Amino acid sequence: MENGRMKNGHDSVTVVAGGAGFIGSHLCQALLDKGQQVLCIDNLQTCRPVNLKQLKGQPGFSFIRADIVDPLPLSVYEYAGRITRIYNLACAASPPQYQADPEHTMLTNVMGADRLLRLAEETGARFLLSSTSEVYGDPEAHPQHEDYRGWVNCTGPRACYDEGKRAAEAMAFDFARMGRAEVRVARLFNTYGPQMHPDDGRVVSNLVCQALSGSDITIYGDGSQTRSFCYISDMVEGLIRLMERDDMPHSPVNLGNPDEYTISELLEQVIALTGSNAPVIHKPLPVDDPRRRRPDIGRAKALLDWAPQVPLKEGLAATCRWFAKELGVDRRSRALHEADRPIATVALG
Amino acid sequence: MENGRMKNGHDSVTVVAGGAGFIGSHLCQALLDKGQQVLCIDNLQTCRPVNLKQLKGQPGFSFIRADIVDPLPLSVYEYAGRITRIYNLACAASPPQYQADPEHTMLTNVMGADRLLRLAEETGARFLLSSTSEVYGDPEAHPQHEDYRGWVNCTGPRACYDEGKRAAEAMAFDFARMGRAEVRVARLFNTYGPQMHPDDGRVVSNLVCQALSGSDITIYGDGSQTRSFCYISDMVEGLIRLMERDDMPHSPVNLGNPDEYTISELLEQVIALTGSNAPVIHKPLPVDDPRRRRPDIGRAKALLDWAPQVPLKEGLAATCRWFAKELGVDRRSRALHEADRPIATVALG
Repeated sequence: MENGRMKNGHDSVTVVAGGAGFIGSHLCQALLDKGQQVLCIDNLQTCRPVNLKQLKGQPGFSFIRADIVDPLPLSVYEYAGRITRIYNLACAASPPQYQADPEHTMLTNVMGADRLLRLAEETGARFLLSSTSEVYGDPEAHPQHEDYRGWVNCTGPRACYDEGKRAAEAMAFDFARMGRAEVRVARLFNTYGPQMHPDDGRVVSNLVCQALSGSDITIYGDGSQTRSFCYISDMVEGLIRLMERDDMPHSPVNLGNPDEYTISELLEQVIALTGSNAPVIHKPLPVDDPRRRRPDIGRAKALLDWAPQVPLKEGLAATCRWFAKELGVDRRSRALHEADRPIATVALG
Repeated sequence: MENGRMKNGHDSVTVVAGGAGFIGSHLCQALLDKGQQVLCIDNLQTCRPVNLKQLKGQPGFSFIRADIVDPLPLSVYEYAGRITRIYNLACAASPPQYQADPEHTMLTNVMGADRLLRLAEETGARFLLSSTSEVYGDPEAHPQHEDYRGWVNCTGPRACYDEGKRAAEAMAFDFARMGRAEVRVARLFNTYGPQMHPDDGRVVSNLVCQALSGSDITIYGDGSQTRSFCYISDMVEGLIRLMERDDMPHSPVNLGNPDEYTISELLEQVIALTGSNAPVIHKPLPVDDPRRRRPDIGRAKALLDWAPQVPLKEGLAATCRWFAKELGVDRRSRALHEADRPIATVALG
């Protein structure tokens, strides 16, 4: 199709909304590495400013500070004739962040998606929504296949995010069904790696930062709840493959690592890597916290020939090294030193 | 609380968004009958204009034509100091109507709820969201209790409505938890009665109008799917009781009639009342059409001392009489004549 052919044109521009965030900044870098022009739109609500600084100096990168809840600024439309791809990764993604202003979270998901879908309609660009495993809520089906409809409490404190993403998916597929835009919907499971925000409240960054800094290590509940952790380079590769796959059915696609760990097992690995002997304290599980989370990635394998390549131990070592440097903390563990080799696809830092 | 005491003040105003629609117009009439001042806000998208005309002549009734997707017009704010109650019933509610412009349906639910919640925050008014049994999707639990989280396809053609309402519930309870507004959320199950739109595509109006006019009677699927039909006067009473109940927990409340009928049983009753001998034709079930629907109304009984009073046969007779008059069709059946007595709480017509 025409967009597919245009994507390699020298003038074509890829929009990354939320491009200053954790996943967004890695995606921007990967696109720049492929020689693409990138227009990053971000309100800088939850980003690490240095992520953006590293991108700003590079040829082909442009930045517009804007909140997609508001009408898009006119400066975006200066690129309109050249926009062929729109990635929407804009939304605070960890519970403490997205619950701080739940109204804004909901509007980011719904109004934001609507504004970017309209931009896709106006420009003929292909649109990719980064949705979330949270659309499955606290799942009763395991692992989670895309056809599982979820177990989401639509009246609870996580609903601003979970239901916002579900609503955004609904809008995206309506645009697709009506022929208004060509859309892709990725459901992202837990993702980790360098350039995470140390304070974003996600489990990997929490445990690694606490272990490295020697402060108490917090486990919510008894640590038996499970998650599946996808290294950032695998996630970025999956997103790009999904965006570039032509003739997609109107279906969401899970992206995540199907290797499932309990939080206690994750902690063991973090302790082994960091040599931490900090005390572990237990706090109550948050309301509606999911007990289990593991993606069925059969659809991504079949349609995108994609599967994660980086095992947890390897990705976690790279993440610990990065956080150690970021926090100015000595690497305490021989394991961390031994694991000190670059992962080919780590984009930045 | 203060709002509760103010509600009978002569100057206080109750906003009814969607007040020109089927349920909205009955609600406006019931409030006027109680001597209240009513400000109806409606975009007239799906209403019968005569519903509004009947209201307009009455003292205490005001009307502003506006779409709650857009910023509220300044004329609404002229009432701001007096607004103590806001009912949000604004949204196209039958699949053919809400699927005609799914983007608008989603934004009506999400942006509309946000604008009216902000109006509630600004005025200190109590806010009631009319949500829907559609938040349960095609339910696997039966009957549906408020704690059941639903089985909704968030990527399908009904999602603009179902997910829009789920998102609106999420926003409402976020406003409540943050102390920004006092909210009530009603989940309305199928409601029927006089002043339904003959063309809105809902099963009661479809069957009654087809039977009365002698055209082919359409049954989707084999007619074994079930619904529970609540007569309009019962629904209006439930809405008002929910709004006026003080000290509500942050919980949605089902409102509907728990008497469950298959569509074939409904058709039998319609044929018995109308004497129709029109041929019955079967069409395929729409995508994601729920197989069963019956409210658990234990919470409404406990908190509101409310339960439906009008049995289907009686409500259906009143509805058939009204449609017969509306369509200018002779009453064909002795049963319809015999049932020709007023239901005390039918508000209009």
